[in-house]
Formats: sequence, structure tokens, C-alpha cells
Amino acid sequence: MSTQNFYIALLHSPVYDKKGRVSVTSIANIDIHDIARCARTFGVKRFYIVSPIAEQRALAEKIVFHWQSGFGSTYNPSRKEAFALVDLKGALDEVLEDIACRVGKKPRIVVTGARLAGECLSAAALREKVQSGEDPYLLLFGTGSGLAEEILERAHHRFEPIQGPEEYNHLPVRAAVAILLDRLWGK
Amino acid sequence: MSTQNFYIALLHSPVYDKKGRVSVTSIANIDIHDIARCARTFGVKRFYIVSPIAEQRALAEKIVFHWQSGFGSTYNPSRKEAFALVDLKGALDEVLEDIACRVGKKPRIVVTGARLAGECLSAAALREKVQSGEDPYLLLFGTGSGLAEEILERAHHRFEPIQGPEEYNHLPVRAAVAILLDRLWGK
Repeated sequence: MSTQNFYIALLHSPVYDKKGRVSVTSIANIDIHDIARCARTFGVKRFYIVSPIAEQRALAEKIVFHWQSGFGSTYNPSRKEAFALVDLKGALDEVLEDIACRVGKKPRIVVTGARLAGECLSAAALREKVQSGEDPYLLLFGTGSGLAEEILERAHHRFEPIQGPEEYNHLPVRAAVAILLDRLWGK
Repeated sequence: MSTQNFYIALLHSPVYDKKGRVSVTSIANIDIHDIARCARTFGVKRFYIVSPIAEQRALAEKIVFHWQSGFGSTYNPSRKEAFALVDLKGALDEVLEDIACRVGKKPRIVVTGARLAGECLSAAALREKVQSGEDPYLLLFGTGSGLAEEILERAHHRFEPIQGPEEYNHLPVRAAVAILLDRLWGK
């Protein structure tokens, strides 16, 4: 199974807050840990954390350094391996450029969200596209109350929302990442 | 889809630490939040947090109260709904008795773990058993480095481990809960 051309990004801006206003969220330490470990387990090539706030990126880089090269790297070698996938960027366009530099092509953008409607890709359909190997794919996750419209408009595809047996649907973004990566790449 | 007779529990003892010694872990605030939200989304009837340390249970109960009845209940009503599923217990036997009190029968125990071997149930097979409605089912998750042997020995079934495309397999327990509940009850 090839996940060679598959990337994920966690956006802290532009996202909605709980009142539906476009806003910027803070980088959460637990997101770095949980999502890096999921990304490594499911063969994701790179996990981008996107925030326009330089001080927050600097703090996140300190955390990444601790587990990559500091005391954490010998205390927990499996964490070191997961953190090797993490990259901090200031905006989505920097992510697209970074992937273009690595593989010579900008990625197709796939957005996620609990309330996405319209034509959506199933996990099987997206897996097939990635495995065709023609283009790199970037799966975007929003913090707060989800990705802002201006990001949704830039997407090439929408990923089918996760839904349980009832109406209630308030998963942490960490859980959404785990579930969608398992649907795509779990054995 | 009926998940009426389906329960989960997160055990903080007896579990292995990273050196393979049987130990007790601390209750983590993030586990309460993330797992309660997943449990509510996927129709789990009750989410038990098991710790033998009374002070830790008391602290966790304070947190649950905040989101259930305190300021958090009006600040975030969807969190209130998720936290309504949470129950603190001192040991696995108390969980079994609580379920027996509720439905008149002790549950069948299903254990999870990244390194489980031997005969394991797939999600489809477990779903079928739960839906047959004969018995309540309790899915157990271990913190630290997983459930201790004395717990595994008490299980009626083992749940097929999650596996990505490669060898690496170090998911946070929060991610494992999200993935297995989605495999069982996701649409």
C-alpha cells in the first residue's frame, strides 16, 4: 500500500469560532502529539501545523525539538519517529509550496468537516485517487469550529463527514484525524 | 442501529508501564473530554473511567461536574451531553456490577491492545454480537503500555488490533478509542 504522496495539515487560521466568526485558534500541545503519532502509524508523509502567529510556531518548534533531538528523543524513541513528520508553517500557501518543492507538483486539496455537504469523496474513492500516484494529496483539518469558507472554496475535493448512529456529532479534531486516516490506510 | 447494550471503560490499573511493569497511571483530563465526545457521537451507553486512587477519581468528578452542572454546562451544551455518559469507578468489578444493576446481566468483556495476538474479533463480528441483543458488551481500553495480563485473562473476546501500512504502531489511547468506535458504529 502506497501512501507516499499523502500529506495532512492542521489549520489554526482561518477557522470559525463557536459563534461562527472567522478567527485564529491556539496551537495545542496535545494535537502535535496525538496527530503526529497517528500520521506515523498510518504512513502519512508529512504533518503540517499551520498558524499565522510566529510566537506560537516558535513554541511548537521547541516542543518538537524536545522530542526530536532533546531529552525526549532518548526517553521515547517512538515519539521521536512520529515528531520527525511535523512541520510548522504560517499559511496554507507555504504548505503547498513546500510539497511542490519536495515532489515537483502542488497537491490536490481535500477538506474535512463535520457539516460538509454536496458532493463528497468516500475513503475508498480518495484512496484510489492517491494510489493512482498522479498527484500529491493534502488533507486539511480545521481547529475551532472548522475550516473557513475561503479554505473550503480552494478545495479540489470534500471528504465525506464522519457520522455516528445519531444526530450528535462533536468529535475532537484529534479523533477526526485518527478515524479518517484509519478509513484511508488502516489494514 | 442499536448500540443500546454497549459500554466502554478506560483502565488506569492494572496496566503496564513502558518497562513492562504492572502499574497505575494517572487520569488525564484530555482522555475524559476526547473519549466522552467519541462515546456520545457513536452511541455508547456509558463511559467508565477506572482508577483505584480515590483522590484522582474525586478530581475527575470535579471536572465532570464543571461540564455537567457548572459553568461549562451553559458555555458548551454539547460537552454537557457527552459528559453525562461518564462514570468513575475504583475497579473493573465495580463496572461489571454497575452494568448488571442497570440491565440485569453482567457484560461480556472485550479487550483491546496494539499487540493482541491469537483469535481476535473483527469489528463486523463484534457488531453482530452486540446487535444480537443477548448480552451487554463492555470494551476495555488500557492506558500506559496496555492492559495487564490479569485483565486480558478475564476477557471473553479480544478485539483485532489497529494496524497501519507499516510496522510502527504507537497510537494514543484516545485515537484507538475513536477508531474502534468508528469501525463498530460509524455510518
